[in-house]
Parts: sequence; structure tokens; C-alpha cells
Amino acid sequence: MTIDLEALYIDLHRHPELSFQETRTAGVITRELEALGLEFVEGLGKTGVATVIRNGDGPVVWLRADMDALPVPEQTGLDYASTARGTDPAGLDVPVMHACGHDMHVTAMLGALERLAATRAEWSGTIVAVFQPAEEYGAGAQAMIADGVLDRFPRPDVVLGQHLTPLPAGVIGVRPGTQMAASDGLTVTLLGRGGHGSRPHSTIDPVVMAAATVMRLQTVVSREIDPREMGVVTVGSIHAGLKNNIIPAEAKLELSLRYPDEEARTNILGRVERIIRAEAQASGAEEAPIITVDHSLPPTINDRAATARLTAAFDAAFGDGTVVDPGMFTGSEDVSWFAREAGVPLVYWFWGGVDPQMYADAVSAGTVEKDIPTNHSPFFAPVLHPTIERGVDALVVATREFLEEVSA
Amino acid sequence: MTIDLEALYIDLHRHPELSFQETRTAGVITRELEALGLEFVEGLGKTGVATVIRNGDGPVVWLRADMDALPVPEQTGLDYASTARGTDPAGLDVPVMHACGHDMHVTAMLGALERLAATRAEWSGTIVAVFQPAEEYGAGAQAMIADGVLDRFPRPDVVLGQHLTPLPAGVIGVRPGTQMAASDGLTVTLLGRGGHGSRPHSTIDPVVMAAATVMRLQTVVSREIDPREMGVVTVGSIHAGLKNNIIPAEAKLELSLRYPDEEARTNILGRVERIIRAEAQASGAEEAPIITVDHSLPPTINDRAATARLTAAFDAAFGDGTVVDPGMFTGSEDVSWFAREAGVPLVYWFWGGVDPQMYADAVSAGTVEKDIPTNHSPFFAPVLHPTIERGVDALVVATREFLEEVSA
Amino acid sequence: MTIDLEALYIDLHRHPELSFQETRTAGVITRELEALGLEFVEGLGKTGVATVIRNGDGPVVWLRADMDALPVPEQTGLDYASTARGTDPAGLDVPVMHACGHDMHVTAMLGALERLAATRAEWSGTIVAVFQPAEEYGAGAQAMIADGVLDRFPRPDVVLGQHLTPLPAGVIGVRPGTQMAASDGLTVTLLGRGGHGSRPHSTIDPVVMAAATVMRLQTVVSREIDPREMGVVTVGSIHAGLKNNIIPAEAKLELSLRYPDEEARTNILGRVERIIRAEAQASGAEEAPIITVDHSLPPTINDRAATARLTAAFDAAFGDGTVVDPGMFTGSEDVSWFAREAGVPLVYWFWGGVDPQMYADAVSAGTVEKDIPTNHSPFFAPVLHPTIERGVDALVVATREFLEEVSA
Amino acid sequence: MTIDLEALYIDLHRHPELSFQETRTAGVITRELEALGLEFVEGLGKTGVATVIRNGDGPVVWLRADMDALPVPEQTGLDYASTARGTDPAGLDVPVMHACGHDMHVTAMLGALERLAATRAEWSGTIVAVFQPAEEYGAGAQAMIADGVLDRFPRPDVVLGQHLTPLPAGVIGVRPGTQMAASDGLTVTLLGRGGHGSRPHSTIDPVVMAAATVMRLQTVVSREIDPREMGVVTVGSIHAGLKNNIIPAEAKLELSLRYPDEEARTNILGRVERIIRAEAQASGAEEAPIITVDHSLPPTINDRAATARLTAAFDAAFGDGTVVDPGMFTGSEDVSWFAREAGVPLVYWFWGGVDPQMYADAVSAGTVEKDIPTNHSPFFAPVLHPTIERGVDALVVATREFLEEVSA
Repeated sequence: MTIDLEALYIDLHRHPELSFQETRTAGVITRELEALGLEFVEGLGKTGVATVIRNGDGPVVWLRADMDALPVPEQTGLDYASTARGTDPAGLDVPVMHACGHDMHVTAMLGALERLAATRAEWSGTIVAVFQPAEEYGAGAQAMIADGVLDRFPRPDVVLGQHLTPLPAGVIGVRPGTQMAASDGLTVTLLGRGGHGSRPHSTIDPVVMAAATVMRLQTVVSREIDPREMGVVTVGSIHAGLKNNIIPAEAKLELSLRYPDEEARTNILGRVERIIRAEAQASGAEEAPIITVDHSLPPTINDRAATARLTAAFDAAFGDGTVVDPGMFTGSEDVSWFAREAGVPLVYWFWGGVDPQMYADAVSAGTVEKDIPTNHSPFFAPVLHPTIERGVDALVVATREFLEEVSA
Repeated sequence: MTIDLEALYIDLHRHPELSFQETRTAGVITRELEALGLEFVEGLGKTGVATVIRNGDGPVVWLRADMDALPVPEQTGLDYASTARGTDPAGLDVPVMHACGHDMHVTAMLGALERLAATRAEWSGTIVAVFQPAEEYGAGAQAMIADGVLDRFPRPDVVLGQHLTPLPAGVIGVRPGTQMAASDGLTVTLLGRGGHGSRPHSTIDPVVMAAATVMRLQTVVSREIDPREMGVVTVGSIHAGLKNNIIPAEAKLELSLRYPDEEARTNILGRVERIIRAEAQASGAEEAPIITVDHSLPPTINDRAATARLTAAFDAAFGDGTVVDPGMFTGSEDVSWFAREAGVPLVYWFWGGVDPQMYADAVSAGTVEKDIPTNHSPFFAPVLHPTIERGVDALVVATREFLEEVSA
Repeated sequence: MTIDLEALYIDLHRHPELSFQETRTAGVITRELEALGLEFVEGLGKTGVATVIRNGDGPVVWLRADMDALPVPEQTGLDYASTARGTDPAGLDVPVMHACGHDMHVTAMLGALERLAATRAEWSGTIVAVFQPAEEYGAGAQAMIADGVLDRFPRPDVVLGQHLTPLPAGVIGVRPGTQMAASDGLTVTLLGRGGHGSRPHSTIDPVVMAAATVMRLQTVVSREIDPREMGVVTVGSIHAGLKNNIIPAEAKLELSLRYPDEEARTNILGRVERIIRAEAQASGAEEAPIITVDHSLPPTINDRAATARLTAAFDAAFGDGTVVDPGMFTGSEDVSWFAREAGVPLVYWFWGGVDPQMYADAVSAGTVEKDIPTNHSPFFAPVLHPTIERGVDALVVATREFLEEVSA
Repeated sequence: MTIDLEALYIDLHRHPELSFQETRTAGVITRELEALGLEFVEGLGKTGVATVIRNGDGPVVWLRADMDALPVPEQTGLDYASTARGTDPAGLDVPVMHACGHDMHVTAMLGALERLAATRAEWSGTIVAVFQPAEEYGAGAQAMIADGVLDRFPRPDVVLGQHLTPLPAGVIGVRPGTQMAASDGLTVTLLGRGGHGSRPHSTIDPVVMAAATVMRLQTVVSREIDPREMGVVTVGSIHAGLKNNIIPAEAKLELSLRYPDEEARTNILGRVERIIRAEAQASGAEEAPIITVDHSLPPTINDRAATARLTAAFDAAFGDGTVVDPGMFTGSEDVSWFAREAGVPLVYWFWGGVDPQMYADAVSAGTVEKDIPTNHSPFFAPVLHPTIERGVDALVVATREFLEEVSA
């Protein structure tokens, strides 16, 4: 192995970049691709990179890794913890952290490409590797497609991808059918009337309007969704006002909705909008709230046949018990746009990054939810080994499963 | 009159500055004081200025004008509307506006000083004029006192001040006894546990904690304060989270409390703290909220004898019907610190800045609350005349009332 | 004195009756009136009684006492505590208690009538005494007027009345102008859709609708009424559902609104209705809530001249310091209908029933609100003496003040 | 068939009885058992009845039907709609309705017993049929067990039962594993301090405390339970106050919790209690709320082997497509206590009672949730045919499957 993957990971972790701003990350990637002698295109979907290894006849396998980080203040206490800051879309200066493991995704992908390139004699077909920006905005995959990535590279026969998750390092989680939820991201502006903090009666207080709205939105999940069906309504951000003694004129909410399918989407969106509008009326608002759907992600559905094939390959490579069914995840992904647009199967799996002993202890103590930091937590910190190795191996095994083997 | 007060006002209005950052404003003031040939000290309480006119034996009358502006985005549509921005204590870039009329306070004070200086032959005594910073933080008066303003200038026999208000231009409002409420400014940090927006069960959602807290805080006024007693609990700002799909780790609230006296303060603070702590417990928070009282303003109490004297002087000067009892205001002021520290009477009055016809129309239509922008509103826009003139005249009449007259 | 007033009071206290059901109470009253040889009419406004003492020329003074008790479970621990029960308008079997002191009102009135009848030689004029039912429903005065009480008896020149209150026994409280608030009583039915407790998604949960409505109604007082103006929105009862595992189809709320005048009424009713309707919409209710105003009481306004006259008479009779200004009360009364309908002055005063030592101790300890049970409390328990005597004396002094004195 | 099952059903439907008050129902049952010549014991668990058909060697099959009705006001508009009333445990007079179909359960059971008794020649073994009271209180099964039903009758080898459900008539729904949720029924008394409706500041308002509690309880499901896991927190009843102008001293809530297993129970109960206690603290309550768990039902878990056997028997008897997997139900049952106590397998299935055309139309229109009344709805109204017949047939087929067949 030429690339020092540990050093590469640490470097990426120390230099996280927000969505559509992954220029340094893209630079690291293209430097390594150049070193590997691979053909690539950069600037796809603003900051994305795609590369191809053409190696004779055979299937075209697309691999996808996402690159962006999050506005999270790292609290892992690691030597190589991020102290980076960035400017978010609202112009705010924010802390930035690879709190979702995309640094590991990039690392494993580069490791896998090196291995696959070095073993060209053993397989036949074409590999396209896509380094995607802005997964966290749910916008990067569509941006790369809009930039023609599906036309500028051989079209896929199958799309593969993997995501780091708080399972024990070494373990792989995948399930046929719906693997991840669908989701929408909404921005809501509640319009009140500002004034002096001591004269509430001359205002329409948007802080109270926002609070009542947040409380009422809880009832979508608690009362309106079948208890047996997955549904999430998260208000991830709330912002209003600049000073204790000024009642502001408006409040901004950002919502994340999660649901299993298109029918559920219609219902959940309708309920959320109904509540937001009615709560503004309860406040006596003179203008209706402004509700915009910023992005909308389809469910991530693993092709059943391809998943079965992959599971068997993982079992063969890593031993029985390596692959678990992690259940459906309530998180969402835009990876499936590549497969949907191309009309081909997708398999998207998870691999663990938690120290196995720590995980086992937490299971014994019944404290997994509490003690094991999840993606997006400021404490999210995968162990380096065997996480890196398993990530590389999984990608290689999966890719080879869908290429043609060349017998010696 | 040497000073062009309209031009001065418009210049100040165009260049508002946040609390403790009033350096340009202080520069304008000292330029005018120099032009008037008056002795002054600058840098008192960081950016404050005080000046003195010594003119023989007699009482020492202190006049006070405040200088700071607010983080409000001006929406008056005026030619001279502010487009200024500033950096607030949290480091945020914010719009800034003279939404409370302090630009008019400074203008009227400079006009009055010019007139009083020009009429030295008619009176005997000492005038100290204080240009105070950071009234909006409730911190400027104490900062100037801490810098020795009461010792570096002749101590007052009476402290006078005036504030622009949405009464018709020409009208003066003043009442004996409690003229303005006492208040506290609080900052509250609610501590939750962050995580992925799709996994609320692994978090302690501070947005919901904040919303429940805001809703519950309404009950302090609605259920716990005697309906006949004044009380306000305003949550002027609420901030949590940066992204729809990340549940943040904490939420910040800024509160403004208003109440008539010290006993009410104990009660209202106790109730607010009780609710904030209990709502954190309802959320299962692992750490108690952090509650800090940022400032605390006493009630503004007008000395009864001095107020009666002043009212008579205003009636004599401006005609009966000019002075009205505006009732107690729920707003608060730090002007009374000067009188409290010196142990002398205070009179603090209001003067109107609304076009009288517009005011009369709103009264007829019963839409005063709705149509007449109040202090701190982005639409707050006094008419220039006769507001400037009445402000100057009121200060001159009031000051002369407490000085000794020199008969020709 | 023929009537044993202590025994009479204890008998009435032991046998409280709900509004419009005061038949036993009316029987006690007519028995005493007969014993006094007075002319009376019963069954006025269902259970009311009125009597007249005609005694030559002179003013006609109306005195009014109310008779009804409340659905409150007495917890005073008194020997003569009520264990009575009654049937409320909803058909519910409820505990009944004289928790508002109307038993004392009747006792003092009978005592005063006996005294006034016995001293006919000293005065000239006409006394009409009205024993009114259903004050607690705000309906009794109008019911008696509808039954012609103003036509069947000499019309008043002045209307007088008194109410027991938690002031020290001996003290009288009265103020000119608005003495008690105006109020409305509302019934609200929230319409949802019932179903199985385990299937909330197939229902429209009226319990959650009611809870959200109650929380939002707090903001009428906390945000929409000028902090310096009196306003109360109380949800005094909430009822929905019969069983933990059935989501009911509807919820019932009973509201009491308090406000100072007619303009405030329009505002507060409008806000309450706006919130109730919007919260039903937030729930996705298919039918709008049913809102009915059950009764509406005007403010109780004491005639300024008559009150000054009365205050002087009390001072003369009982010594300076007996009469205090108790401030405006947030409670409401229907007594003023008699004066409004007749177009004559009203004076309505309060007299204390609390042990003076207990009151003084609570004042010292700052625990008046907590330690002194108020009207409507299950612990409301006036001391018998001098409460009875002062009640009789006050009525006699007040009546004589407005009659003509006959010099010996 | 001797018994007129339609007439029997209509009679039972017209005469519903609340839990533990099913005396008339028990009388109808014993009358029919006597007519069938069957041995029985009554008064088991207060009002329960059990009967046995001993018929040679072979397995002992227990069949269970529940008998009680609900405090629901029937709104079906049927000729035979209930107008019955009953007295609930709180002493309240309430409407009563068979809104859960237990009248159909009894009808089908009697029909099946008649058929099984008439076909004794074809099978060998023992049948015990249990008519259980008070399923709706979750208390009847344990009451019968406490009265020795498991010892006074041959102990079961298998326990079978069925429940009417809003599936199309003819359809049977059953699934292996967890068929119905576990649940708890809680009563909560929130302790405040009562007083006059116009003086909220002298009270601790339990109505607001209750409303805040209900709103906060929504967050248990919306924020604290994994979105992929079933959980329900229903506040099925809320009661406080008797009059708009009295703030009551306490409020009563009844809660129904639903969850899949014992671990979930610990979590959900802990969260509910935490919120209830904290909200009382937020109100400044001087006494902690009183929380009692009235009953606790285990999950209803269908034995996998027995369910497979039954499904095959139903398929054979009724044709493929008759049996569907209805998913896990969020409702709960106490039927499993019989199997748990005896340590034997349970199979509990559902059968449909909805007009198939109406059901098909609702499916087409996407309005099943809205148009098809569910159990506990005031509109719950099974079609008589083929509901009765399928109920009888299903019980007979199931029972015969677990008995020994006797070849002719």
C-alpha cells in the first residue's frame, strides 16, 4: 500500500469542510488519484470528483463516497480533533467537524481504489468512483448528475456505497429493501410584529409563536402517525431575536422530516404545514408563515437480489456473523439518486467504527444509546483500526463481487 | 443657534452605534462641545462624555442623555434611514438602528446646552450634562459612576432627563412616583445532548426543552402575578442549532423581566428560575440550566415635589394641556442610578415625536397600538419638527426651573 | 335582638345550596321576615325573596344580599362545616359549601332589618331588602329583574350591598369608581374524533387539543394585554374522557374572563375565540369548537358621591382607620344590575372576616396570599365575631345615611 | 343450530354492561349453557363463567371470550343501538356500548360450543370455554385465575381466543410472535391549590399543570422512543373543576401506555413519571403528584408453531387468502394470562366485521382510517353476516385443529 491511510484520515479529519465547500478535500483526493495514475474529472457538482478505472469488458460498478463535514463543535478530545471553522449558508461563522464519518468514507475509497488498481489482472470491467459533495444538504448527488456525471462516465450496472456507523468495528450492517428513511428539510419563517420587550401587547411575539409551534409539532409523531410506522419531526434549529429587551419581528425554524415512503410524505408534510399555519393564526399573525422545502430525499432502498449477493460475498470474505441486519435507519441519504437516475440496483451498507470492547460493555450495561456517540454527535470518534481496513476490504470485496473475475 | 440640529440629528441617525461602541457619536458630541467652548471629559464608562457649565453660585443641575442604538433593521423607508451594521457581544454581525430615539436625546441636549450657555446672564448655578453610553444594556450609568463621574464633576442637587416616546409631537408626559418599571436581563443556557436529527431518542432535545420553557414562562404573568400588578416576562431571543438534521446540544434564551419593585423582583425571579429548572428536569437533562442575571435596573421613581415643580414650569412655558400623565411605563431605565448614588431627586419625563394628525387619526380609528410604531420598532421614526424644538425647550425650561434666576 | 344571628349563620352554613336551588335558604329567610312582621314576595327569579319596610316619606334605599353557595368540598375542619351535596347543572353530584360567605350576607341582612324595623321612629323613607339567588352564576339579579322586582317594589334612589372578604374582622374596604371587574363565563366544547387509546392516528385527540388550547390561552394575559391593565383568563374546569384506553370524541372547558371595561371585553373575547378556533385547526378538527357565553357581568362601579358620603358615615360610626381602599377587585358581581336598570347610584363595599391577630401575623410573615384563605377556597372560614356584628352595623349605618333622619 | 345467534347478538348488543358488572350477560350465557346441557361454574372473577366439554382422552383446549362493554355513547344509528347507562368506578352515570365487539365474541363462542357439542363423535379431548369479565380493565383474566379457574377445570394444553376487528367480514388476521402490545393503565392526581377564578396568583392552578403535563407527555413518543419502535402515551381522560370561576385544587388524568416488551415498559414508565413530577415542580406544586399503575398487561405473543398450525387449518377450511398478517396491534389484551399461568402456547387471532364493499371502497379512496370505525368508536358496528358465521367457524376449526380427530 502506497497511501498512508491513517495519516490521510487524520489529515482529512483535521480539515473538515462544509457542504459545497470541499475544495481542500477535493485537492487531497485528486492528488492521490494522480499519484495512482487514474483519470478523473473535478468540479462536478461544484466540488465533486469522479474517477474511472477501465479494465476490459464487463460490468460497470459505481462506488460512491461523500466528502462534506458538519457545523458541529468537536468535543472528542482527540489529538487530531478539528478546530476548523467555516461559513454556513446564512453567513454565520460556525465550528466544523467530520461528525458523520465522511472523512473515513473518502479514506476507505482511496484505499480501495489503490487496491483495485493494483489488482487489475484479477478482474475485468469498469469501476467509476464518485467523491460527492454536500450529502449533508441532500443536494450533492443531484448536483453531480446535473453536471452530467452519468453521461461523462460509463453508466453503472450497479451502484455501491458504504457509511460509517456506531456498530462495533469489524461489523457490517446491511438489509434488503428499505435501508434508510426518506426525508425532507424545511425552512420556516414565522412572521410576527416586533417591538419593545416591555410592551408585548403592541407586538405579535414570534418567540412564543415558535415555541407553541415546536410543542404542537410533537403531536404529529405522538398522535397522527401509526405507532407502528416510522416517522420523525425534528426542529433542528430555532432562531429569533438579538436582545432580551426587543421582541423580534420573526423567527426561523429548520425542520427535518423522516418517513418511510411517498404516501407518508404527503401525510407528514400536510400535518406539519397545517400546524405551522394554525399556530400562526393562534398568535394572530397578520401574515402566513413562509414554508419552503429545501431538499427532499427518497428512501434508500437496497435491491434485494444484489443485497443477497453482497451479503454472501461478505460472509465468505469476513466469516459468518460479520454481517448483521441493522434494521431500517431513520437517517437519509442522497446516494440513491445515482441508481434511480440510471435505473439500476443500489446496495448501500454500513460498517462499524466503535471499539468492540466499549461496545460490548455498553451492551452489558444497557447504555448503548447513552454511551456510544452517534453520527452528528460532537463526540463521534471512530477507532482507526480496524475501521480503516474493514472499510477498504468491504469496498474491494463488494466491487469484485459485481465485476468479472479473471482466472489466473 | 449655531448648531444645525436637524443636520446633526440626521447624521446621528445615519450612524447608529451599539452599546459601549459609541465612539463616533462621542466624537460628534465633543466636536460640538469644543465649538461651544465647554469643558468636558470623555471616555467615562468607556465611551461616555460629561461636560459642565459653571456659572456662579446656586444649585447643581445634572442633565442626562443616552447615546446608544439597537440591533434592529431599520424599515422606516426614510431618506436618512440607517444601513449601518455592527458586531454584537456574541460576535454576530447585526443591523443597527436608532430605534429608541437616543439620537434625538443627544440632539436636544446639545441644542439645550447651546441655549443655556448663550443665556448665562439669566441664571446662576452649575449645569452638568452627561452623555451616557449603553443604556440599552442597562450598564452605562453604572459604568460612568464607576469611572468617577460623580466625583469628577460637581455633585447634583437634582438629576433631570427626558426620553422620546410615541406621544404626539409637542406633548410632554410625566408623572410623580414610579414612572418606569424595574427590570432584569437574563441569559439562560439550556443543556441537552446533541445528535442526529433522525435519532431523537439518542438525544436530549434542547429545542423542545426551550419551547416548553417559553410556553411555561407565560404562566408567570398569566397565573402567578396579581392581575392588578404590572409584570412582564419576555423571551427576547432564542437560539439553538445550525442545521435541520442535527439536534444541537444546547439552546440559549435571553429574557427581560419587568416589575414594579424589589419585592416583585424576588417573586418573579424565583418563579422564572423554578420553571426553567423544572422544564430541564422534564426533559431529563443531565445538567441544570445556566441562568445568569446580566443586569438589573431599579424602578425609575420621579420625586413628587420636583415633579410638581417641573409640571408647573412646563404648563407655564407651553400652556395647559401640554403635560399629560402617561401612566407608568413598563420600560426601564438606568438614569436613576445617578440620582440614587447621589441621594438626590430625579425627574425623568417623556416627550412626543409622532405627527399629531397621524396620532389623532389613529386615536379615532382605535388603532394606536397597531399604527403608531413604538420604541424598538424597526418603523420608529419621529417627525423632526417640532420634536427637536420641544426637546430643546423642555430641557431648557426644566434646567432653568432648578437653577437660580438672575433678574435683569 | 330577637334573632339569634350566630345560630342562624351556623344553620345556613351547614345547609348550603347551589345557585337557583336556594329553597331551604329562602324558607329560613321568609320565616324570619314573618317573625319580624314584614311584607315580602318570594319566588322572584325562581328562589329569590324581597321585602319592604315602608315608613313615611323619604328616599327609597335598596339593600341586597345574595344567598347561593358553591360546589366546593369544605375543608375548614369546623364543627359546623358543611357536608352537604347538590346536583350541579350538568347533573353531577357535587359537594356544596358556603365558600364565598353568602351565608354571612344573609345573616347580616336579617340582623340589619330587625334593627331598622325596631328603630322606625328614628328614620323616614322606604327600605327594600333583596335576597338574591344565583350570584355565582351571574344570573340571579337579572332573573329577579325579569320577574319584575323593580316594578313590584318602590324603585330605589340608591342601591347598597356588602360582601365578606379576607380583610381583618372589623375593617371595611370600599373605593369610589370601579370596585370589581367585569367578567364573562364561557363554555367551550372542542370537537375531535374518538377511538381506541392505542390508535391515536385514527382519532383527533380532544385531550391534546384541550391541553394545547389551555397553554395558548395563557398568552392572552402574558402577551396581549397591556401589563398595566387588569385581565384574567381562567380555565376553571376541563373535562374529557371516561377511561384511560378510550380517546374521547370531545372535551369541555369552562372559562372565566375578567377585565375592567367594555373595550377590554371586546379584545379579550376576540383573542380567546381566535386561539380556541386556531388550536382546533392545528389539531385538524373537522368541526369548529362550540363557544357559548353563559353570562356576562358588568363592572361594579361605585358612585363617587355616594361612596364619599358612605365613607364619612362609616368613619363617624366606627372611627377613622376602619375604612380602607382595598383596591379594585378582580372578582365580579351582578349586584350592579339593580342600580343600572333603575339608573341610580350603587355603593358596594367589603367587610372583613379574618381573625385580626392571624391577619397581622400573616402580614408580618409576608404570607397573606398563602395563609389567609380567600373566597372560594375550601378553607374559607370567617370568625363569627365581630364579623356578624360589623356586618349588621355597616348595613344599618349605610341605610340610615341614605334615609331621612327623624329628630326626636 | 338451536340458538338464534343473530337474536342473541342483538340482545347482548342492546344490553351492554361495564366491567365486573356483566351479570345480565352471564345470565344469558348460563341460560344457553344449560340449554346445551353443559356443566359450568359462574361467579368466577366476580361475574365470569367457565364451562367444560369432556369427551375422552386427548388435549385440553381452552377457548376464551370476553364479555364487558365500554362507557361509550353509541352513535351507530342502528335499530338495536344501545341506550343503556351504567355506573362507572368513579360513581359517574355513563352511557354504555359494546364498542369493542365483546357481544360478538360471546355470540360466536356460544355458537361454536353448540356445534362442538353436537359433533362430539368426531373428536376426542376436552374443551374448556371461559367467558371472562372486565377485559377492558385488564383485570378479568387475573380475577378468574385468582378464583381458581385453572385448578377447577382441566389445565390447558393450548389457549385460543379471537377478537373482532375492522377487517372485511370473512377475513382472519393472525401473526406469529407479538400480536398485541403490552400496556399499562395509570391514574394521576395533580395536586394544586384552589381558589377564586379571578385570583390565579393565590392558587396553584391544576388545570394549567395538567395541560402542560399533557403537552410534555407528547415528547415521550416524539423524542424519546426510537422512531422504529412502537410506543403510545394516551391521556384518555382529564378532569378538573366544577365551575368556570373556581380554580380547583386538583386535576385527574388517566393514561394508557403501549409498548412492545418489558424493557420498553421500564423506559416509558420512567419517562412518563419524570415528566409528571417535573411539570408539577414547574407549577410550584407543594405536593408531588400521586401516580398509580392501575393495571399492567403483558404483550400478547402468539406461539409460532401453534400459529403456523392454525394458519394452515384456516387456509384449508376457508381457502387461501382468508388469513392475512394484520401486523402487530397496538391494542392490548389480558387473554395471555391464562396461557402464561399455565405455561402453554397461546394463539389469539382477529376476525373482520366490516362490510367488504364498504371496506373496498374505503381502500380505493384511501380513507380506511377515516371511514371505517375502529374498536372503541361510538360508530363501531359490525355487519351481522357473515361476521357471526365466520366467528363460529373459526373457533370450531381452530379448536378441532388442536383436539384429536376421531375417524368415522
